[in-house]
Amino acid sequence: MTEMTLGEAARLTGGHLVGDGSRIIRGVCSPDEAREDMLCVIWDKNVLAMIPPGVPVLSPTGALAGHDGIELDTPRASLVALMPYFDRRIDDPPGIHGSSVVHASSSIGEACVIGPGCVVSEGASLGSRVILQANVFIGKNVIIGDDVRIEAGAALQDFVEIGSRAVIHSGAAIGCEGFGFVPGDNGSWKKIPQTGTVIIGDDVEIGPNTTIDRATFGATKIGRGTKIGACVHVAHNCDVGPDSMMVGFVAIGGSVRTGRGLLAAGMSGIADHVIIGDGVTIAGRAGVTKDVGDGVTVSGFPAQEHSSEKRFQSSLRRVRDYGERIKNIERVLGEK
Amino acid sequence: MTEMTLGEAARLTGGHLVGDGSRIIRGVCSPDEAREDMLCVIWDKNVLAMIPPGVPVLSPTGALAGHDGIELDTPRASLVALMPYFDRRIDDPPGIHGSSVVHASSSIGEACVIGPGCVVSEGASLGSRVILQANVFIGKNVIIGDDVRIEAGAALQDFVEIGSRAVIHSGAAIGCEGFGFVPGDNGSWKKIPQTGTVIIGDDVEIGPNTTIDRATFGATKIGRGTKIGACVHVAHNCDVGPDSMMVGFVAIGGSVRTGRGLLAAGMSGIADHVIIGDGVTIAGRAGVTKDVGDGVTVSGFPAQEHSSEKRFQSSLRRVRDYGERIKNIERVLGEK
Amino acid sequence: MTEMTLGEAARLTGGHLVGDGSRIIRGVCSPDEAREDMLCVIWDKNVLAMIPPGVPVLSPTGALAGHDGIELDTPRASLVALMPYFDRRIDDPPGIHGSSVVHASSSIGEACVIGPGCVVSEGASLGSRVILQANVFIGKNVIIGDDVRIEAGAALQDFVEIGSRAVIHSGAAIGCEGFGFVPGDNGSWKKIPQTGTVIIGDDVEIGPNTTIDRATFGATKIGRGTKIGACVHVAHNCDVGPDSMMVGFVAIGGSVRTGRGLLAAGMSGIADHVIIGDGVTIAGRAGVTKDVGDGVTVSGFPAQEHSSEKRFQSSLRRVRDYGERIKNIERVLGEK
Repeated sequence: MTEMTLGEAARLTGGHLVGDGSRIIRGVCSPDEAREDMLCVIWDKNVLAMIPPGVPVLSPTGALAGHDGIELDTPRASLVALMPYFDRRIDDPPGIHGSSVVHASSSIGEACVIGPGCVVSEGASLGSRVILQANVFIGKNVIIGDDVRIEAGAALQDFVEIGSRAVIHSGAAIGCEGFGFVPGDNGSWKKIPQTGTVIIGDDVEIGPNTTIDRATFGATKIGRGTKIGACVHVAHNCDVGPDSMMVGFVAIGGSVRTGRGLLAAGMSGIADHVIIGDGVTIAGRAGVTKDVGDGVTVSGFPAQEHSSEKRFQSSLRRVRDYGERIKNIERVLGEK
Repeated sequence: MTEMTLGEAARLTGGHLVGDGSRIIRGVCSPDEAREDMLCVIWDKNVLAMIPPGVPVLSPTGALAGHDGIELDTPRASLVALMPYFDRRIDDPPGIHGSSVVHASSSIGEACVIGPGCVVSEGASLGSRVILQANVFIGKNVIIGDDVRIEAGAALQDFVEIGSRAVIHSGAAIGCEGFGFVPGDNGSWKKIPQTGTVIIGDDVEIGPNTTIDRATFGATKIGRGTKIGACVHVAHNCDVGPDSMMVGFVAIGGSVRTGRGLLAAGMSGIADHVIIGDGVTIAGRAGVTKDVGDGVTVSGFPAQEHSSEKRFQSSLRRVRDYGERIKNIERVLGEK
Repeated sequence: MTEMTLGEAARLTGGHLVGDGSRIIRGVCSPDEAREDMLCVIWDKNVLAMIPPGVPVLSPTGALAGHDGIELDTPRASLVALMPYFDRRIDDPPGIHGSSVVHASSSIGEACVIGPGCVVSEGASLGSRVILQANVFIGKNVIIGDDVRIEAGAALQDFVEIGSRAVIHSGAAIGCEGFGFVPGDNGSWKKIPQTGTVIIGDDVEIGPNTTIDRATFGATKIGRGTKIGACVHVAHNCDVGPDSMMVGFVAIGGSVRTGRGLLAAGMSGIADHVIIGDGVTIAGRAGVTKDVGDGVTVSGFPAQEHSSEKRFQSSLRRVRDYGERIKNIERVLGEK
């Protein structure tokens, strides 16, 4: 755990220093763990009242009163600059652990860390400074760029390609066979061989226990810069656009194409073969069954344009009132 | 497989013996697998008619007629006393398997079982009688209490803390980085470093392939005695109260706080930053978007108090009838 | 990558050759990756217009015009015959990798491939030609048939039985303890020991990160020929019928029984103890809370017969119109 002065923290974040810049901070904390040597972060100025006196605070501009601290227009963004200094993670020195199994025909770039129990198969190629934490499986002919970090227990099947600076969390399974079957005899199912692969762009992050299936032929693609949360499923032959964000439990059906900058909130899903434009937002739990144009926000199931869905939902909340009014009308009519 | 007399089973469960206490039982079974040497368990007295004669039965009080068996007011609870005698699981003797990789600086308590392929990293500390089944990853400075059992393929990232008597099933990923990003240049995303950890209380159970993310700063917390099912996701900075139960596919958004004794049924979810009181029940598939007070049961999406949701849903079922009645009214009015 | 003539491909698929049967194809591709040496597959004849001239096409009967290619009544089914020739996967030679840990008491059939880091526990039995890719965990007394393939990181707990020709993808966790608890003292939960097992039939496929829990007693069963996608959960004591298909994120509650040929679409679920007949289809996101008879298609939540659900949903879309008409009626009545 590092320490720095409040003044140094203000400089790093580009924020406005309030009060004593020489006091020491040893980390960043939330309001319920406020301590005098930690910089307490608040997103909402109303929270300030609950911070004990003497605790330094990082807050939105105009919120600080009676505390030392830092004011910022975008406090959340400032964490990107500040928090690496307080990261306790200890990187392992480069090297291949003796318990790992690295095939002689594979290619390992400089300064890689290959932890215990990892398997790097025939023909695989790792760039420079790749970290395989432990018990990672790299299949045959997999290609991995530079500065990629893959956590314990992740598995990359044969031929998968991973761009530079990707982060792949524990338990992610990339390149398993897509789920494709045709009817066989007597109600049975015959498997369509899934001979394609998965291509993951640069700067992609893939959450723990997320699964991305290989294409039937060609490649399932995840565009550059896209961030995928925990326990997401991307089915075979999808083409996910760059700079997108998919939160936990999102499910993308087969052969879906999405544009640049998709935001898919938790537990939302997209049905097979749907095409999604650029800049689309899918609300939490929405189920998208039809194509969506550029810039549209959708919600509900079946998902529709968000303002329509809101009108629809609020109409449903009036049904009980309508029932009363119909009864009244019938009574009035009966009396006439 | 052990055997015991029906009389011994009655004593163990505290139930009322009916018929021949000297007959031998070799296990517990369900009605469709009824055998004369197995104690057939029924929850519902109507099922008794389908049990072949000669099969001993464990049933609710007042149900047994024509069978040897045991009557109990709470038959399900009796299994807790009875079934350990029929558990076929064979524990391994204490010891560290030669294929595992245990860092010299880690601390291993007495009588631990560290199975093949496990990795215990620098600075990690295991209590007594901890079982790591196989291919388990324990990150740096992880702290584990006594009598913890961790199954094959689970991964605990650096600094995670696990209480005593916890059970962690295969594929669980605990302490991966939370999903936190801020907008960068040109539509890209910048990662907020996730420097916190996960703290899991005593007696917690965590289901297979469940993911619990580390906090941005501070700790994601799972309270003592909480039981979590398969494929659940708990996002960064959550604080889940003690003695709670979360069934399969529950998703808890970032910074959610829940009170004591939460019951969250399958496929339910809680949105980011929501605060849930003590003794709350969330129905299956409910999506909670607002704070919930103590003792409330909620259902639907967006979730509301369950009795309101039921009234709302039943109003919707009357819409077709309202349509007919409106048409009738319009006809009558047209005639006048 | 193999190559063959278009004529050979036509013979393999049983399709109708159109044009030059002597031209060479080196693989199968989708329309957006059309190349003159790849057979471009289209499901819909309208897509033909976007295929560049000179590219050979596999299409539905009656669609080809101006292209060499193959016409088939069932183009998708033809892939089952054709694609194995273009599969790049390289099988490992039989053998037990030196880094794997195979217990002396286990039984390994002929021509098995046991990859690096695998664990085969005491008393386990593998048939012939079983492939354990890498870091696979096989618990004690597990029984596996012939020609089974298990991918990296999958875990099979003690006593689990797997039929012949099964495929188990990365991260699948089979045989973890079911989620069964009874209330203890002071709001705590006591675990019901889960002493049963899981029995998986022949020709079953189990997707990545799918979890199938062991029974409390007896066995959780997956019937012969059933195909299960990614991230599915089957709870304890379920009995899933043969030749079924469950797509990603399906959740099956405890003690559910399903008949032959179930089709459960993505994100659908079945509540505890529900009984499902033969030939049932469950639509995407449907939540089944009651028993379903043979041959029925259900949708919605709570799920009902699909035609009823469609009528119900379309009635809801008329609510805003009803509101307008009620207002009109009230105005007319007010004027009278």
